[in-house]
Amino acid sequence: MKKVGIVMGSDSDLPVLEKTIETLKEFSVPFEVHVYSAHRTPEKAIEFSKNAEDKNFGVIIAAAGMAAHLAGIIAANTTIPVIGIPCKSQNLEGIDALLSTVQMPSGIPVATVAINGGVNAALLSIEILAVNDKELSKKLKEKRYFDKEAVLKKDALISEKFFNENLNKN
Amino acid sequence: MKKVGIVMGSDSDLPVLEKTIETLKEFSVPFEVHVYSAHRTPEKAIEFSKNAEDKNFGVIIAAAGMAAHLAGIIAANTTIPVIGIPCKSQNLEGIDALLSTVQMPSGIPVATVAINGGVNAALLSIEILAVNDKELSKKLKEKRYFDKEAVLKKDALISEKFFNENLNKN
Amino acid sequence: MKKVGIVMGSDSDLPVLEKTIETLKEFSVPFEVHVYSAHRTPEKAIEFSKNAEDKNFGVIIAAAGMAAHLAGIIAANTTIPVIGIPCKSQNLEGIDALLSTVQMPSGIPVATVAINGGVNAALLSIEILAVNDKELSKKLKEKRYFDKEAVLKKDALISEKFFNENLNKN
Amino acid sequence: MKKVGIVMGSDSDLPVLEKTIETLKEFSVPFEVHVYSAHRTPEKAIEFSKNAEDKNFGVIIAAAGMAAHLAGIIAANTTIPVIGIPCKSQNLEGIDALLSTVQMPSGIPVATVAINGGVNAALLSIEILAVNDKELSKKLKEKRYFDKEAVLKKDALISEKFFNENLNKN
Amino acid sequence: MKKVGIVMGSDSDLPVLEKTIETLKEFSVPFEVHVYSAHRTPEKAIEFSKNAEDKNFGVIIAAAGMAAHLAGIIAANTTIPVIGIPCKSQNLEGIDALLSTVQMPSGIPVATVAINGGVNAALLSIEILAVNDKELSKKLKEKRYFDKEAVLKKDALISEKFFNENLNKN
Amino acid sequence: MKKVGIVMGSDSDLPVLEKTIETLKEFSVPFEVHVYSAHRTPEKAIEFSKNAEDKNFGVIIAAAGMAAHLAGIIAANTTIPVIGIPCKSQNLEGIDALLSTVQMPSGIPVATVAINGGVNAALLSIEILAVNDKELSKKLKEKRYFDKEAVLKKDALISEKFFNENLNKN
Amino acid sequence: MKKVGIVMGSDSDLPVLEKTIETLKEFSVPFEVHVYSAHRTPEKAIEFSKNAEDKNFGVIIAAAGMAAHLAGIIAANTTIPVIGIPCKSQNLEGIDALLSTVQMPSGIPVATVAINGGVNAALLSIEILAVNDKELSKKLKEKRYFDKEAVLKKDALISEKFFNENLNKN
Amino acid sequence: MKKVGIVMGSDSDLPVLEKTIETLKEFSVPFEVHVYSAHRTPEKAIEFSKNAEDKNFGVIIAAAGMAAHLAGIIAANTTIPVIGIPCKSQNLEGIDALLSTVQMPSGIPVATVAINGGVNAALLSIEILAVNDKELSKKLKEKRYFDKEAVLKKDALISEKFFNENLNKN
Repeated sequence: MKKVGIVMGSDSDLPVLEKTIETLKEFSVPFEVHVYSAHRTPEKAIEFSKNAEDKNFGVIIAAAGMAAHLAGIIAANTTIPVIGIPCKSQNLEGIDALLSTVQMPSGIPVATVAINGGVNAALLSIEILAVNDKELSKKLKEKRYFDKEAVLKKDALISEKFFNENLNKN
Repeated sequence: MKKVGIVMGSDSDLPVLEKTIETLKEFSVPFEVHVYSAHRTPEKAIEFSKNAEDKNFGVIIAAAGMAAHLAGIIAANTTIPVIGIPCKSQNLEGIDALLSTVQMPSGIPVATVAINGGVNAALLSIEILAVNDKELSKKLKEKRYFDKEAVLKKDALISEKFFNENLNKN
Repeated sequence: MKKVGIVMGSDSDLPVLEKTIETLKEFSVPFEVHVYSAHRTPEKAIEFSKNAEDKNFGVIIAAAGMAAHLAGIIAANTTIPVIGIPCKSQNLEGIDALLSTVQMPSGIPVATVAINGGVNAALLSIEILAVNDKELSKKLKEKRYFDKEAVLKKDALISEKFFNENLNKN
Repeated sequence: MKKVGIVMGSDSDLPVLEKTIETLKEFSVPFEVHVYSAHRTPEKAIEFSKNAEDKNFGVIIAAAGMAAHLAGIIAANTTIPVIGIPCKSQNLEGIDALLSTVQMPSGIPVATVAINGGVNAALLSIEILAVNDKELSKKLKEKRYFDKEAVLKKDALISEKFFNENLNKN
Repeated sequence: MKKVGIVMGSDSDLPVLEKTIETLKEFSVPFEVHVYSAHRTPEKAIEFSKNAEDKNFGVIIAAAGMAAHLAGIIAANTTIPVIGIPCKSQNLEGIDALLSTVQMPSGIPVATVAINGGVNAALLSIEILAVNDKELSKKLKEKRYFDKEAVLKKDALISEKFFNENLNKN
Repeated sequence: MKKVGIVMGSDSDLPVLEKTIETLKEFSVPFEVHVYSAHRTPEKAIEFSKNAEDKNFGVIIAAAGMAAHLAGIIAANTTIPVIGIPCKSQNLEGIDALLSTVQMPSGIPVATVAINGGVNAALLSIEILAVNDKELSKKLKEKRYFDKEAVLKKDALISEKFFNENLNKN
Repeated sequence: MKKVGIVMGSDSDLPVLEKTIETLKEFSVPFEVHVYSAHRTPEKAIEFSKNAEDKNFGVIIAAAGMAAHLAGIIAANTTIPVIGIPCKSQNLEGIDALLSTVQMPSGIPVATVAINGGVNAALLSIEILAVNDKELSKKLKEKRYFDKEAVLKKDALISEKFFNENLNKN
Repeated sequence: MKKVGIVMGSDSDLPVLEKTIETLKEFSVPFEVHVYSAHRTPEKAIEFSKNAEDKNFGVIIAAAGMAAHLAGIIAANTTIPVIGIPCKSQNLEGIDALLSTVQMPSGIPVATVAINGGVNAALLSIEILAVNDKELSKKLKEKRYFDKEAVLKKDALISEKFFNENLNKN
C-alpha cells in the first residue's frame, strides 16, 4: 500500500498531527512523519516532495501555522495530492494559516481541511488511497457506520433524558 | 478510468466550473456535470453521492456560494474524496462560502480549494485519480512543465525589458 | 399545543441548548431534544424534518458549530420555521458557524439568532407559537415585564450607589 | 389572515424589500410597508411595534443597513416574531448590518436572514403564519416543489450539454 | 457645571464603566449612572435621553455589548453629544459592538471610542465640557502633563536598565 | 462662536469632507479647512493642534484613510475634542482606517464616526459646540425635525403605494 | 552601488511593481526585475535568492497575491533583507496576501509593506541601501522635502478656497 | 557599528521587545531602548527620530498595540529604515495594531513584521545592518545554520519515534 507522508512545519504542530497519526494507525495505513520547515529547512521539504512519488508515498499531509507556506511549497514540488492543515497559533485564531494554505493560485492545488483538522486530514488521505483500494474503502464505510452509531446512541440518551424531564415538568 | 463528478449548487456557479471542465477535458478525464442544490434538491444530491462509487466516480467536485453546504452534504453521503470550491457571491467576498466549506467537523473531510478555484479543483481531482494511474501522473508533470515554461518565458521578456530600460536610464 | 423540536449537531452543543430547554420549560412549551448530525446521521436529520409537521412540531431549533450545516439541511426538508443557533467552537470565535447558518440562499430561510444564543432561540420559537396562542402571548409579555423589572431594580441599585459616592466625593 | 408588517430604515433599502413584497404577493399574504427609522423617527417605529399585535400583524420584517438597530428596536417593543434583514451599504460588505442585527442580547430575539435576503425574509414570515394555516402551508410546499422542478430542469439541461461535449471530446 | 450621564445596557458592563466613573471623579465632574437597556427598558432610555438636556446633562456616555444599540437609541432622542463604548462580550472580540456603535447612519452621530475604552469615554466627555470651561481645560492639560511625566519616568528606568545591560554585554 | 478645524490627511479625502463642510455651512458654523499629513507634514499637524485652542477652535475634525494616524496625532497635541473620520481607500473596505482611528489607547480619545461619515462628523462637532450655545442647539433640533419630516413623507408615499398595490392584488 | 532585486509571482502583479520600478529609477538605484513563481518555478526563486548576495543585490522586493508565499520562500534562502508586497487579487480585498506575507514565523523575517504598496517597497529598499550611502540618504531627504512641499501647496489651495467660501457664506 | 533604536509605545509592550533585545545581544549589535508614546510623549518620539541618523542609529524598531501609530510617526521623521511590530492587546487579536502599522500611505514606509514578532524585528534590523557588514552577514548565516540544525534534529527524533511506532503497529 502507498504511504502517507506527514510533514509539520514545527514540532509545536505535533499535537494537531497526533490525531492524524492515531487515525492512520486505526486504518493500518503506513506513514512517515517529518519536521520540515518551509523556511528553515526548505531544501529538505523540497527534496522530500520531489522524491515522494518514487518513495511510494501516495499522499502528503502538511501542517503549519501563521504564514503557513509548507503545504504550498510541497505541492509545488510534487504532483501527488497534498493536504494542508492550517494550525492555530497564538494570534488571529488561525485565520492567517487558513488563508495562507487555501488561497493557492491556479496550477498548484492544496486540499485544505479545517483549522487544526488533524483527524479529517487523515481521513481525506485515506479516502484518496481508497479510490483504488476496496479494502480501505470498506474500512472507511465501517468507520462511518461506527461514527453514526455513536451519534445515534447519544441521541437515544439525550432525547430520552429530556423526554422524561419534559414529562415530569408538564 | 474513474470519472469525476462535478456538482454545482446553482447554475450561477457555472462560470467557475467551466474552468474545471476545461481542465478536465485537457487531461481527457471523463466527467459528469450536475446541478444539485443542497437545499432545493437535497435528495438528488444525496442519491448522487450514495451511488457515486458504484457508478464509477472516483472524485466529486462541489461548488457553492454563501452558506455553502453542498460539498459537506455530498461528503456526508460517500467515502470517495470530495473537493469543495467556495464561490464568491454578491456579498462578503466569498468568506462565507470558504468557512462553510472548509470548517467541516471531524469525520467528514472536504478537500477545500481557493475561493472560485475552478482550475485547482480539477487539478486536485486529477492528482487523486493519478495516484494509481501512471499515464495521468505523467500528464500532470507535463502540465507542470508547460506552466513552468510559460513563467520562464514571461521572466525572460520582463527581465529583459526592464534590464534595457535600466541601462538606458543609468 | 405544537411542540418545539430541538436538534443539536453534536452533544458538545448541549450547554448552549440547556438554556433553550430551561426557557421552554419556564413557558411550559412541550419539546423534544435530539442529537442529529448533518454529516454523520444525515438521514435521521432529514427524516425528522420531513415528519416534523405531521408529528405536531411547530418550530425546529437547530444548533451547530464550525461549518454549521444542520439548520440549513433541516430547513431544506420542512416548511415549518427553522431557527439556527451558531455555536462557538475552539477557533474563529463562532464566525464560521454564524456565516454557515445565516447566509442561506433564496428559497430556504433559517431564522438565525446570536452566536450561542440559546435563550433567544427558545424565545423566538415561543413567539412563533404564540402568533395563534393568546395564552402563550400573555406569558411572553409577562416575561418581558419581569425582565424589565429586573433591569429597573439594577438601575435603582446602581444609580443610587454612584449617586451617593458622587455626593460624598463632590 | 394576519398581516406582515414590512419596515425599512431608509428608502434606500427598498430594492431589497421589493423582493420581499413580490414574494408575499405571490402567496397572497396581506402586508403593509413602512419607512420608519430607528434613529430619525424612533417613536413611529416604537408605536408601530407596540400596536402591531392589536392591528392584526402576525410578523414584522425589518430591513436596515450599517449599524442596523431597526429590527432590535422593533423587537424590543412587541412580542410577535421580528425578522431582520441586514442590508449591504457602501462599505464593509454588509458585515456591520449583519452583526448589528443578529447579535441580540438574551431576551429580545431577532430572526436574522442573510445579507440582502429579501426573499427569505418573506418566506420565513409565511412559514411563521403557516404554522396554523394549512392553506398557506400547502402553498409553501408547492413553491418548494416548483423551485425543485426548476433546479431539476437546469440539471437536465446542463448535465446533458456537458455529457455531449464530453462524448465528443473523448 | 453640566453633568455627564453614564448609561450601561446591562450591569455586566459595569467593570468597563468603573474606569469611566473613576476618571470623572478625578476631575470632579458631576455624573449620574444608570442601567437602561435599549431592548428591555427602551422607554427609560428614551425618556432619559429626551430630558437629558433639561436636566443639565452636557454629554451622555453609553456602554453596551453585542448588537450594541444603546448609544444609537440615546443619540436618536437627544441633540447633546453621545459617546459610545463598545463592550467586548464572550464572542467575536468586541467587533460586533464596535460596528453596531460606530457605523451610525447620517443624521445621528455617536462619538465612538475603543472597545472597552472606559477611560477615554470619560476624557472625551470632559474635553467636550471643557470647550467652555477654562478650569476643566486646565485640569485636562495637567492630566496630560502627569501622563507624560509617567511615560518619561518609565523611559528613564527602562532605557537606563538596558543601557547598562548593553554596556556589560559589549 | 468657536470654529471647527477640518483637517484631511490627503486631498483624496476631500469628497468625504465636502459633506462635512456643507453641513457646517447649513448651520453657519465657522470653520477652516487644511491638508495636513500625519506623515508628510507632521509638524504642521502638530503646530495646528497645539495652537488650536488659542486660535478659537472648539473642535477638530480629522479625516484619513489606510493606517489613519492623523486624528490620533492631532488628539495627542490638544485637549479640545477631536473627531476622527476613517476614510475608505482602495483596499480592505475601510476597516484599516476604522481600527487605526478608533482603537486609541487610554489617555488620548478620538471621537470616531462611521467610515466616510462626513455628515455625522459635522453634526457631532455642532452638538459639541451647542453644549453651551442655545441657538445652535435649537438649530440641531430643527434639523432633526426636518429629517424626521422627510422620513415621514417617504413613509407616507411608500406605505400608500404598496397599500394600493396590495389592495388591487388581494 | 548594490542592486535591488524585484521579483513578482505572476506578471499580473506587474502594475503594482511598475510604481516600484519608477521610484527606483527616480533615485537612480540599479535593479533587476524577474517573474519567479514560488509554486511554478520555485527552483528559480531559490537559486536567485541563494546567489543574490554574491550577485551584488542588497535588497529583494517580492510581490505576490492570494496565498503569497514568494517573499517567504525568498527570505528563507538569503540573509539579505526581503521586502514583501501583498497584492490584492479578485477576492478577499488582499487580506489573504497580507497575512501570508507578514505572519512569518520566528527566524525568517519579511519586511511587509501595505497591500499593493509598490512605492513604499521601493522607498524602503532605498532607505536600507542608504544606511551606508550618504548620497542616497540625501536624495531621500530631498524626496521627503518635495513631498512635503506638495502637501503644503495643496493645503494652501484648499484652505484658501474654503476660507473664501466660508467668508462669503457667513 | 551603527546602533539599533528600540522604541515601545508603552512598557506593557516590553515582553515582546525582550525577545528583540535578546536577539540583538546574541549578535552583539549595539542598541538603545526607549519608551516613547506617539500620543503621550510625541515630541520625544519625534526628537528621537529626527536625531537618530546623527546619533549613529542605523535602524529603528517600534512596537505598539491597538491603534499603533508609533512606527508611522517615527518613520515620518527620519529616513533610516523603521521596523514596526504590531502588538496584540486585550481585544481583536492584534489585527488593529497590524493594520495600523502596515497600511502606511505612499511616501513613508514601515517594514512590518508579524504580530508580536519580536525576534524577527531584531533579525530584520540585523539583516539591514549586515548589507554592508560582512562579519554580521556571516553571523546571520551561522544563525540560520544553527536553526536548520535544530529543525533537522527534531525531524530525526520525531520521524524515528513514529517510524518505530508505525513498525510495531503494522
